[in-house]
Amino acid sequence: MSTDLAPGKALRGPMNGVDTPALFATIDAVRGNPEIAKFRFRAKNRWVSGTHNRSVIRGFYGAGQEDASRTEDFVYDADHPAILVGSGNGPTPVEFLLHALAACLTSGLANIAAARGVRLTEVESTVEGDIDLLGILGLSDQVRNGYQGIRVSFSISGDAPEEVLRGLVEQSRARSAVYDVLVNGVPVEIDVATR
Amino acid sequence: MSTDLAPGKALRGPMNGVDTPALFATIDAVRGNPEIAKFRFRAKNRWVSGTHNRSVIRGFYGAGQEDASRTEDFVYDADHPAILVGSGNGPTPVEFLLHALAACLTSGLANIAAARGVRLTEVESTVEGDIDLLGILGLSDQVRNGYQGIRVSFSISGDAPEEVLRGLVEQSRARSAVYDVLVNGVPVEIDVATR
Repeated sequence: MSTDLAPGKALRGPMNGVDTPALFATIDAVRGNPEIAKFRFRAKNRWVSGTHNRSVIRGFYGAGQEDASRTEDFVYDADHPAILVGSGNGPTPVEFLLHALAACLTSGLANIAAARGVRLTEVESTVEGDIDLLGILGLSDQVRNGYQGIRVSFSISGDAPEEVLRGLVEQSRARSAVYDVLVNGVPVEIDVATR
Repeated sequence: MSTDLAPGKALRGPMNGVDTPALFATIDAVRGNPEIAKFRFRAKNRWVSGTHNRSVIRGFYGAGQEDASRTEDFVYDADHPAILVGSGNGPTPVEFLLHALAACLTSGLANIAAARGVRLTEVESTVEGDIDLLGILGLSDQVRNGYQGIRVSFSISGDAPEEVLRGLVEQSRARSAVYDVLVNGVPVEIDVATR
């Protein structure tokens, strides 16, 4: 979800499935009216049973209005596996963090490659997170609740030298929304209404 | 993904779809052998086209071995909407963060309620995140790439007074893996192999 302008950008055509001219036009439009850059994303979750719950993702606000482009809900279940006293109806919540990170870095990488005129042929990544459940089980105050560390391993091929391909990942990291949130944290407020 | 032991816990039966005796037995087992609390979760992602990519979640390591309980892959697409120069084949990566947060807090809440003998009837939450795309578009160095703030609004009903229901959310927050990661951040390493 990022780009880095390169010399000669006006000459770039679509590449990597990225509508590069539209990307540059979007950046120019935002430069001319920074208010349209303010977005608000949303998920609605409902408890099903035990550790099983379900989120619906659809609406968001951005570019000055509520989005109407999505015609169907995106629906995601989360649960614990049996070994963590769940029923395995979905991944654990912490696994969705790993997906979000891989997805954000990969989206940005495709955009940046297109902006730089690099044709990608394959991008794969594996994301792993280490967690010690002594934290969330309340068995140690010395162990944090969340991941202690996350590792992303990219495998990339494209029509550019190794250092150029590595530079795409570095630029994607430098402008990744999910990477920023995971590394630097974000304020979270929680309100509760009871019925 | 959390519990808080309550007096009389040995007497608790299953509740809220939580196998409460199994939950307490698991905590006792981990207390006796803390090594089994070390887990490693994983997601594998593959670029499809443009900002569209797909993650597969299945295997994880925990309780001293590679898990074999999941018999199918969990598969998730991510993409940008058209307004962000994508094709809308999935939510944006940052929306999956909101789902992960709601899911983690809700899973923990159901466990904690069961451990405290509170019967839940309904738990809903809406999670919203504000993001200013001037960051990821590279148009401002004063604006962060990620969310500037996230708000979670819970609506809960159950057979307990309001302050008890609120206490469930507070304890879930205090032991949530995703909340911890989002608020406090986590080290992320990125490796790149080129082909």
